[in-house]
Amino acid sequence: MSLFAIGVDLGGTNLRIAAVDSNGRVLDKISADAEVARGRDYVLDEMCKNVRTLAAKFGGAGRMAGIGIGVPGIIDRQTGMVHESPNLPGWRDYPARDEIERRLRTKVILENDANAAALGEKWLGVASQVDDVCMVTLGTGVGGGLVLQGKIWHGMTGMAGELGHITVDPEGVMCGCGNQGCLEQYASATAVKRMAAEAVARGQAPELARAMNRDPELSPKAIYQMAVQSDEAALQIFRNVGQALGIALANMINVFNLPMYVIGGGMADAWDAFAPAMLDQVQRRSFVYKATAPPDGVRIERTSSSNAQPRQSTIVARASLGSDAGLLGAARLPMIADAADLSKPRSNRASTGVKSAH
Amino acid sequence: MSLFAIGVDLGGTNLRIAAVDSNGRVLDKISADAEVARGRDYVLDEMCKNVRTLAAKFGGAGRMAGIGIGVPGIIDRQTGMVHESPNLPGWRDYPARDEIERRLRTKVILENDANAAALGEKWLGVASQVDDVCMVTLGTGVGGGLVLQGKIWHGMTGMAGELGHITVDPEGVMCGCGNQGCLEQYASATAVKRMAAEAVARGQAPELARAMNRDPELSPKAIYQMAVQSDEAALQIFRNVGQALGIALANMINVFNLPMYVIGGGMADAWDAFAPAMLDQVQRRSFVYKATAPPDGVRIERTSSSNAQPRQSTIVARASLGSDAGLLGAARLPMIADAADLSKPRSNRASTGVKSAH
Repeated sequence: MSLFAIGVDLGGTNLRIAAVDSNGRVLDKISADAEVARGRDYVLDEMCKNVRTLAAKFGGAGRMAGIGIGVPGIIDRQTGMVHESPNLPGWRDYPARDEIERRLRTKVILENDANAAALGEKWLGVASQVDDVCMVTLGTGVGGGLVLQGKIWHGMTGMAGELGHITVDPEGVMCGCGNQGCLEQYASATAVKRMAAEAVARGQAPELARAMNRDPELSPKAIYQMAVQSDEAALQIFRNVGQALGIALANMINVFNLPMYVIGGGMADAWDAFAPAMLDQVQRRSFVYKATAPPDGVRIERTSSSNAQPRQSTIVARASLGSDAGLLGAARLPMIADAADLSKPRSNRASTGVKSAH
Repeated sequence: MSLFAIGVDLGGTNLRIAAVDSNGRVLDKISADAEVARGRDYVLDEMCKNVRTLAAKFGGAGRMAGIGIGVPGIIDRQTGMVHESPNLPGWRDYPARDEIERRLRTKVILENDANAAALGEKWLGVASQVDDVCMVTLGTGVGGGLVLQGKIWHGMTGMAGELGHITVDPEGVMCGCGNQGCLEQYASATAVKRMAAEAVARGQAPELARAMNRDPELSPKAIYQMAVQSDEAALQIFRNVGQALGIALANMINVFNLPMYVIGGGMADAWDAFAPAMLDQVQRRSFVYKATAPPDGVRIERTSSSNAQPRQSTIVARASLGSDAGLLGAARLPMIADAADLSKPRSNRASTGVKSAH
């Protein structure tokens, strides 16, 4: 092992940290029992403590490229601050990167969590055979990440990839972003819970009503289980999820013409329930998809990185790394930045003490 | 003048050819009186004849980089064939590039016309100060072109940028592409004519009805003139155009986070009539736009390349090159390809007889 990095997944609820080598092998993983709700300074302490532990453990055997941190918010890459992050109290406009670099004396890269997940799937997951991938993450909200020519596409101000706010119904449900009919209002875990409550309120979902009577906080997972057991109201909710996703994906396919679109995040576990409606919409709405769909019968809905060879085909696939995508992608960040440094002419490079092969 | 190229705009109705130097100066321009409807071989003869004339005229003073041709269709860049082009009878799956190269003995590059227009606006037009631009062309149909980091984004099979087929109303008007509610069904010249006929049929447009009685083929330009004169039915049609454009643009802004989005094509002449509704939708539907909109009062709606400095602002602008965007962009193509050749290591380069400075 010559090079390793430490990835941090700073979720809305907890903190996960891993040491990963340059081949993508996870050397060690820590699920810190650190509730993010306990505040910024507590999280920073826990993070730095655990990073130090991992760095010490593996520092003897290799060089550490740095630390990548996936954050559920919008990052200002120039200042290393978090711009918007409703789920991280106290982090907004705080110089997080500089503070962590000061404490740990190593390179720190902050990245939006959906971008990190897209990079993870591109590095080690279902998208490893392609250079361009568009990822949609279905969680509490709906996020997105674009990897174009192997690199995260950040856009002008780091706000690119807000796929959750594609309009899928111009007259639809109001969204916190100010728009109405955003994808997020139909394809997030939050949306599934809302649609279930609405179905119950309409008196159209007797089984859901009974279940919500027993458990007012009925989870999307429980609703999915009811869909698996053919409850019509639950099935319809996931059809709505798939329909909204399909409209958004068809737009992306017509605009980007990429080889692969990946659906990840916790809600991707309900793939069986929403994918048929999603793929039907994509097929119906995107002539670019129709022109490039994989041959009949090889419509790859689940796939592993080893058999995904999408040459000239448009593949819509389920993510394969599960909740590790963001963690692995975060660890990848300092490795790539490192390689980018090395590829620059010597005169433009900051002194790193690294010997060059040139 | 050390380098020049010849651009060809192979429109749906006629053929325009220009010699352009590497500074973007138009040396000469020919509007060949060649109706494209007279067939492929006739058009090829006319094109080659006029290209030869221009090449001979300027070949003494400089080196010709090659010929770029903007085509209203989908191009297979590997084979140099036109894949889909409803307006060019006889061109489909014909080896156009090879045939023209054979006749003229120089490098020929085929490009989708909206992509060429985007490149033209980026080179010499409203987008000259930015590296990334998304262009929507409003003509008989609605096309699109993406320039990312200075280069046309082609996607996997050359079909990227099909912005006219973004869904703006999932239950909307059927589109020839198989989808319903495509942008093209609300923002093209064809759509304006259809919406006018519908308004007349509903009995809600007395002035339009009178005008269509005089001229059953009432043009979008004439309908626009009625909007300028405050005819409510005509105004509503262009509000619909703006609304559809705004929904599609808000999606693109949320996904790409680019510094500039440009509206061009013949229908852009109706900018005054549709832009207010368009910008209202963008403002309402894109939180990325809201976070990056130019300061109040400098909402640049018309702009020239000299004063467009969109640093960290999202600008939605009208194209500034008019119908020359595609012609100039086409001429740019061989110049860029030439530069790309020169930047490659010598061993990878085809022998061009060009002396290298290395």
